[in-house]
Amino acid sequence: MTTTDKASPRDRLLDAAAQLVYREGVSVGVEALCRAAGVSKRSMYQLFGGKDEMLAASLERQIPWYEARLAPADPDSGTPRERILHVFEQVEKASADPGYLGCPYLAVLVELKDPGHPASEVARTVKARLEHGLRTQAELGGARDPGLLARQLMLVFDGASARAGARVEHLDDGLTTTTVTALLDAAGMR
Amino acid sequence: MTTTDKASPRDRLLDAAAQLVYREGVSVGVEALCRAAGVSKRSMYQLFGGKDEMLAASLERQIPWYEARLAPADPDSGTPRERILHVFEQVEKASADPGYLGCPYLAVLVELKDPGHPASEVARTVKARLEHGLRTQAELGGARDPGLLARQLMLVFDGASARAGARVEHLDDGLTTTTVTALLDAAGMR
Repeated sequence: MTTTDKASPRDRLLDAAAQLVYREGVSVGVEALCRAAGVSKRSMYQLFGGKDEMLAASLERQIPWYEARLAPADPDSGTPRERILHVFEQVEKASADPGYLGCPYLAVLVELKDPGHPASEVARTVKARLEHGLRTQAELGGARDPGLLARQLMLVFDGASARAGARVEHLDDGLTTTTVTALLDAAGMR
Repeated sequence: MTTTDKASPRDRLLDAAAQLVYREGVSVGVEALCRAAGVSKRSMYQLFGGKDEMLAASLERQIPWYEARLAPADPDSGTPRERILHVFEQVEKASADPGYLGCPYLAVLVELKDPGHPASEVARTVKARLEHGLRTQAELGGARDPGLLARQLMLVFDGASARAGARVEHLDDGLTTTTVTALLDAAGMR
């Protein structure tokens, strides 16, 4: 919390939104967000115009961290198959955290139920970029239908995220890597 | 709405909760629910004790409809493989509805983020029962590891539900049946 005290009101609000929305959902109140950030509601409205924009900005700000977590340390190392499996190994690792509640972008999409919400637009972009990355690896690995394989992998990614986040499934025995391996094999992926 | 007018206050509240929570999420207010049902807040609290219990009762009440929708017309017809594929064909059909927002039980689990909430408990039971049914068919069809296959199928089920419900994916080209077919084949399922 000491580093937070030195952050700007804008960054404090974005951090508070990231944490509270992940833990409690998008319906978390503006009062609670401003209180957690130590920023007045008046300042919040001056900085962001409203909660919707603050929520979108908070999700936007987390993208580099989120994408770095899924990406291999060296993007040129390994085979395309290994790079795809790495993404799911990272999800399996993340899900072991007691505070894991699934992919924050999927959660926001499910909770908002509104594709036109500015935060939904950020979440959709992140999801599309992950799918694009998987498709690129599928192409490099010679999958028969890279577009189809990438869509299948996203079903597994989001299904695992939602189920492990909701505590109706656990991934610590390699459930997603086993599933993804079957799909990679079926797609003729090297 | 004419049939609703004749329904009991309890049923009117459960119907309103089912519709509003599905469309707007679990954070929908008690005022809005009571208004939609044409029932006073006082009556709601007398009938259910609170919103959490009303929400749980509403999800409970939808179970027969939900499960009938996924089940084959004749549970003894077809092969185990066909009965599993039928579940996913039903999801693909449901997702074509413009009002489709994914599986209501998964949505509630993602939104509540609280496994101890009475509505989460209902949702978890429904999910476990579906997984059990898939596992039974996997056993009947001679899958190598029926428990693993059922868990894989649930990843696809919930991933498809979440993604199609959030409008980041469409299932009308048979995405889930293609994916499930690959997993059934990999499991050695007849």
